[in-house]
Amino acid sequence: MEEKHIKYLKNLLGNRVLTGSEIEARYASDHTEDFVFYPAIVVKPETTKEVSSIMHYCYKNDLTVTPSGARTGLSGGALANHGGVLLSMERMNKIVQIDEENHQVITEPGVITEELQNAVKAVGLFYPPDPASKGSCFIGGNIAENSGGPKAVKYGVTKDWVLNLEIVLPNGEILWTGANVIKNATGYNLTQLIIGSEGTLAVVTKIVLRLIPHPTHNVLLLVPFRNGVEACEAVGKIFMAGIIPSGLEYMDRDAIIFTAPYVDDAPDLLKSDHDAHLLIELDGFDLDVLMQESEKIMELAEQFDIDEILFAETEAQKESLWRLRRKIGECVKTHSTYKEEDTVVPRYELPQLLKKVKELEKKYGFKSVCYGHAGDGNLHVNIIRDQLSEDTWTYQLPEAIRELFTEVVRLGGTISGEHGIGLVQTPYMDLAFNETGLDLMRAIKHVFDPKNLLNPGKILPEKSGTT
Amino acid sequence: MEEKHIKYLKNLLGNRVLTGSEIEARYASDHTEDFVFYPAIVVKPETTKEVSSIMHYCYKNDLTVTPSGARTGLSGGALANHGGVLLSMERMNKIVQIDEENHQVITEPGVITEELQNAVKAVGLFYPPDPASKGSCFIGGNIAENSGGPKAVKYGVTKDWVLNLEIVLPNGEILWTGANVIKNATGYNLTQLIIGSEGTLAVVTKIVLRLIPHPTHNVLLLVPFRNGVEACEAVGKIFMAGIIPSGLEYMDRDAIIFTAPYVDDAPDLLKSDHDAHLLIELDGFDLDVLMQESEKIMELAEQFDIDEILFAETEAQKESLWRLRRKIGECVKTHSTYKEEDTVVPRYELPQLLKKVKELEKKYGFKSVCYGHAGDGNLHVNIIRDQLSEDTWTYQLPEAIRELFTEVVRLGGTISGEHGIGLVQTPYMDLAFNETGLDLMRAIKHVFDPKNLLNPGKILPEKSGTT
Repeated sequence: MEEKHIKYLKNLLGNRVLTGSEIEARYASDHTEDFVFYPAIVVKPETTKEVSSIMHYCYKNDLTVTPSGARTGLSGGALANHGGVLLSMERMNKIVQIDEENHQVITEPGVITEELQNAVKAVGLFYPPDPASKGSCFIGGNIAENSGGPKAVKYGVTKDWVLNLEIVLPNGEILWTGANVIKNATGYNLTQLIIGSEGTLAVVTKIVLRLIPHPTHNVLLLVPFRNGVEACEAVGKIFMAGIIPSGLEYMDRDAIIFTAPYVDDAPDLLKSDHDAHLLIELDGFDLDVLMQESEKIMELAEQFDIDEILFAETEAQKESLWRLRRKIGECVKTHSTYKEEDTVVPRYELPQLLKKVKELEKKYGFKSVCYGHAGDGNLHVNIIRDQLSEDTWTYQLPEAIRELFTEVVRLGGTISGEHGIGLVQTPYMDLAFNETGLDLMRAIKHVFDPKNLLNPGKILPEKSGTT
Repeated sequence: MEEKHIKYLKNLLGNRVLTGSEIEARYASDHTEDFVFYPAIVVKPETTKEVSSIMHYCYKNDLTVTPSGARTGLSGGALANHGGVLLSMERMNKIVQIDEENHQVITEPGVITEELQNAVKAVGLFYPPDPASKGSCFIGGNIAENSGGPKAVKYGVTKDWVLNLEIVLPNGEILWTGANVIKNATGYNLTQLIIGSEGTLAVVTKIVLRLIPHPTHNVLLLVPFRNGVEACEAVGKIFMAGIIPSGLEYMDRDAIIFTAPYVDDAPDLLKSDHDAHLLIELDGFDLDVLMQESEKIMELAEQFDIDEILFAETEAQKESLWRLRRKIGECVKTHSTYKEEDTVVPRYELPQLLKKVKELEKKYGFKSVCYGHAGDGNLHVNIIRDQLSEDTWTYQLPEAIRELFTEVVRLGGTISGEHGIGLVQTPYMDLAFNETGLDLMRAIKHVFDPKNLLNPGKILPEKSGTT
């Protein structure tokens, strides 16, 4: 990067600018595979006005900008793979206002999701979306990726909780996308267009979220199945009985084998004949109702070939079960480099999807760990690198993934449920949308970012071809 | 319209084309004020392919097209005010598939919303959005306007139930906007961009909706308040107590006076000291829980100056109370021409909004009937024409409305909660969005419809000026 640009940005932001060897390794990676991309410069604005000034300057001077949160992403959306400016939102980390009377919160994007949840819980309110990385990810990153998490099955994903966004366009202009209301039929839904756009259309600088009263009770069940396909079938039955759990997670045998050694107090729950577990949470305001629903679920589960159901008795036991679940992704990564496919299908098609994964394992000779949000039909397929040859990893796996995604789309699903497309899934976008759809998205990108400077190369494949 | 165009379209659609005196009056109006705009031609496609052919032809020949459902709209979005082609979706009225296992339904846009609800209810499933016009409006129109209704307070609006849309672009190209899944982080959210776009971006030809198990029980309470502002305050208290009603409707005194004479079996409920009523519905799967919640609500209500609470004992009584509520809009219209303002603010600001309405009534000398979805902060302000002079109606009222909307926006709200902008609210869009926001929307419109042929002049004001 030219010295004059560095000088300008340092003049604007003082010591909140890093260049060269000042740039720590953490700014070069997120949680996706083993990628390392160093930006030319890291800038850390503290106000919307500073973001606007940075964007305006970069736009005028044709500098690429990659917005970045806590870099816990799993598709590479916050990687500065074109170098240029990394716009780190870490200093915009204030909760602006908790509006108890209207059940809303206004926050800056750099607040850690769990801290936001705790702050509103302190006044009896609830922000449900809870990605596995909630202890370190930023709410702004959740907006960028339209993050989910276990509670999505009952409460929906990030997009279902966002009322209004303050954004800065690539050219530095500032606007609000909506209003602070739960019903809005006023113009095109710019708010929803920004959510999940992975920092390619605009930079989010303020967020208005709706909240609800925090449930006062929850119960947690762990059901061991001797057959993973039956576990998936049980998921459908629970919904058909009129019960909407606040968590309905699937963990296959290997997911627990990989993870248990890394969780200090992991319960010793895996028996030799267990093929998969369902972790089922119910929440609400009336414990009697939850107990009745638990009983119904146990009755339903007993129609399948299951082992004894574990009913978590204490908060500590609940926490340790959830920690086990949340750690899977991290533990698989500790074990080996892996590719994570974030498949999602209509809920009842999960067994079909699982069968396809097993079939592809055999065909291509890889090993995978499968787990995820069964209630949403959202299965994370972690393909383990382990002993795979460079040739298999680099050339054959993309074919296997294409075959997997083709089946996912055939089943009515799509190629990412909550991790986004980012850098790594762009070659498969032609499976999710026809060329007309992709061209529409390219044209929308061009409306916001005519010079293609904001997070270029993410989400949309080059027009010419696909893998 | 040139004879060759009529000939082409008749050749394509046979007797499903109307011109000149064949065009019945119903194609010239919707439910907005007293507008009458005749199209040059009405076409009634039956398939996506036919829609595509019509659009392609009109695009090539620079003919404007106005998509139209059941024309129950309240902002004039389906009025062919530029003449041209009225694309009536009435013949695309089939429910394609009810997918019980995945809790989804695929439908064509011309299905009456209530018929769709009944069809899925027959298999135990629930599509909650229920605009007042549900007995006659089309689901496609609900998508176009992002319709709400009483149940939105618990279940959200139309946008919260749409998974995927098949759309036809102005040039005739066909695409699906998403996938049939409840979590989706795959590219820009075209689905949400189409919802609420009032038929200005594309024509919706198939709709995939998510469903949930149908609640088995409900209870209904009517609470008479001696002070309307206190009724609004009570709304906030109910939520703060952790109760989320499935309906929470506000009706002011005049709303009931206007409506009761037109409803055959209207309960005789209005006493001389009643200023406003709250109609409160709870639904769920456990009657005991609902009874407990009802008691809590009654306790909360008794903290205000209320008369005796009516607890509806029978289905017939419930139905007659809901009929009274749903008929208000229609009855006000029967009484007099009116302008309906669909204001929405954060819930707790409702008393503030009501005060402003009363202040404006005095200042401008008009009479209004106020009612609506108090739980959502969505207040319908019906300004009655009655004896108002032409001068007041045409020149002074827009000033009063601008003043009202200015206050709405100041309170964090916006100018339409569920009726859309259509034709009548475009002059006020500059209050809801700054020029940057409006320019973005104009550019998005241009991406989809570069020749500005699809429902031109709706939503977005001309660039040059505003009222």
